[in-house]
Amino acid sequence: MTLAEAPITPETMPVAEPAPEAGARTNGIAMICYSGDLEKTWAAMILASTAGAMMMPTKVFVTFWGLQTFVKPEKRVTGDNWMQKMLSIMSRPGIAHRKLSKMNFLGMGPWMMRKLAKQYNVASPAELLEMATAMGVEFVPCQMTMDMFGIKREDLIDGMGEPVGAATYLGYVGDGASPLFI
Amino acid sequence: MTLAEAPITPETMPVAEPAPEAGARTNGIAMICYSGDLEKTWAAMILASTAGAMMMPTKVFVTFWGLQTFVKPEKRVTGDNWMQKMLSIMSRPGIAHRKLSKMNFLGMGPWMMRKLAKQYNVASPAELLEMATAMGVEFVPCQMTMDMFGIKREDLIDGMGEPVGAATYLGYVGDGASPLFI
Amino acid sequence: MTLAEAPITPETMPVAEPAPEAGARTNGIAMICYSGDLEKTWAAMILASTAGAMMMPTKVFVTFWGLQTFVKPEKRVTGDNWMQKMLSIMSRPGIAHRKLSKMNFLGMGPWMMRKLAKQYNVASPAELLEMATAMGVEFVPCQMTMDMFGIKREDLIDGMGEPVGAATYLGYVGDGASPLFI
Repeated sequence: MTLAEAPITPETMPVAEPAPEAGARTNGIAMICYSGDLEKTWAAMILASTAGAMMMPTKVFVTFWGLQTFVKPEKRVTGDNWMQKMLSIMSRPGIAHRKLSKMNFLGMGPWMMRKLAKQYNVASPAELLEMATAMGVEFVPCQMTMDMFGIKREDLIDGMGEPVGAATYLGYVGDGASPLFI
Repeated sequence: MTLAEAPITPETMPVAEPAPEAGARTNGIAMICYSGDLEKTWAAMILASTAGAMMMPTKVFVTFWGLQTFVKPEKRVTGDNWMQKMLSIMSRPGIAHRKLSKMNFLGMGPWMMRKLAKQYNVASPAELLEMATAMGVEFVPCQMTMDMFGIKREDLIDGMGEPVGAATYLGYVGDGASPLFI
Repeated sequence: MTLAEAPITPETMPVAEPAPEAGARTNGIAMICYSGDLEKTWAAMILASTAGAMMMPTKVFVTFWGLQTFVKPEKRVTGDNWMQKMLSIMSRPGIAHRKLSKMNFLGMGPWMMRKLAKQYNVASPAELLEMATAMGVEFVPCQMTMDMFGIKREDLIDGMGEPVGAATYLGYVGDGASPLFI
């Protein structure tokens, strides 16, 4: 269910079950990929792909600016109305178009970062995303963000889970996964 | 106790008790509402109100820029000395005056976000805050931030808990709640 | 092991062991000190020193912009090649040179914050770092960030742990520590 579909009332919200055995942790990670900045996208993808490789059950809830990272590279503009279109033009979607939160300098900062990464054999965010998915990490888009920004399922890269809301995310935490807000 | 009142020494700090039963999690959330940006305030309020509705015991420690969000809407300037007053003028307090961290464009970004939210039936940060409080989520202000910014109890919205310090917050985590820094 | 040294494959990555007793939490904190901004550095150091004083086993993984905070104060420029040197010049390293993420106003914002902190008896980030280290908090640098930015062990302040990668950090979480991304 999504916050956008129904008002939050005790009747409409699932109640978080305590973890299977009282106090059990599942050894899993419940990440919120919130930021669309290049550096934070990188940090999120490094942690997600590493957690996947370490066999830690990992879910990544993709929301707000973070969702733009998961728009297909060939999509230039997303949205139905002029406001949504304008937002996507002001901040170009796609994992290859993330900008640094500071020292962007008309793109020179990100260019240097990517160049240094290549030189020191650090995988790019796009490569890490592919690895993470291959390792079984599940990326789930936030329904509310999709609604607000007018982003549709077909705008998003392949392999993502069904859109969910904050309640589903918090359910992962209630089930014992450790939250990480990035 | 607060960091502002006493130096940190083993004698003056409480020792975090291990969770009641060794290794138990309380299924709760211990959020730090740190950012005063519109988008992050929104994310924090969505998670807090949803956690409340799901009956997850939820505490929100409100600190740094986040505290400005919880100043009463009618308060224009807070602080005792010129520096504190200037800081509150440079960044207007109140939940209705949060700005986007990027694409602010003299207020057009936030205006579009709020308009889209309304169109897609997403509750505003102020509405979510009210819901969260009604659902039993406890918002506690950071004493040190209040001291530094000269914000007084009567400047803050009604219904907040007693001011506490970092040690009280970490006590929630020590008791088994999952931390979330937003 | 570091991400920079080897590709991520199931063979090269350690598998996260479930916590010692199934579902046990260690009552510890596994912080990621990611941001180099003054306010976030402050928040991270307050939490780390307080957790240390409360005897919570605390590890701080220092990565991305956060690593610049841990460069020795006397170092002005770090890096081997012109790009790395340029990055360190654009964003001066050292804990005394952190800037506010907003309201920097050519340094007036940070000056006011530091002045207010002194007036209200709040320890500086550098003092808190010293306290935290004295309290047994372990600060470990991210190998990948050191490689990308050309920062060497001898550029970093004394008392830090051996450089590690994301897998080591996630191991702390797998062992039951609560993650905090700041």
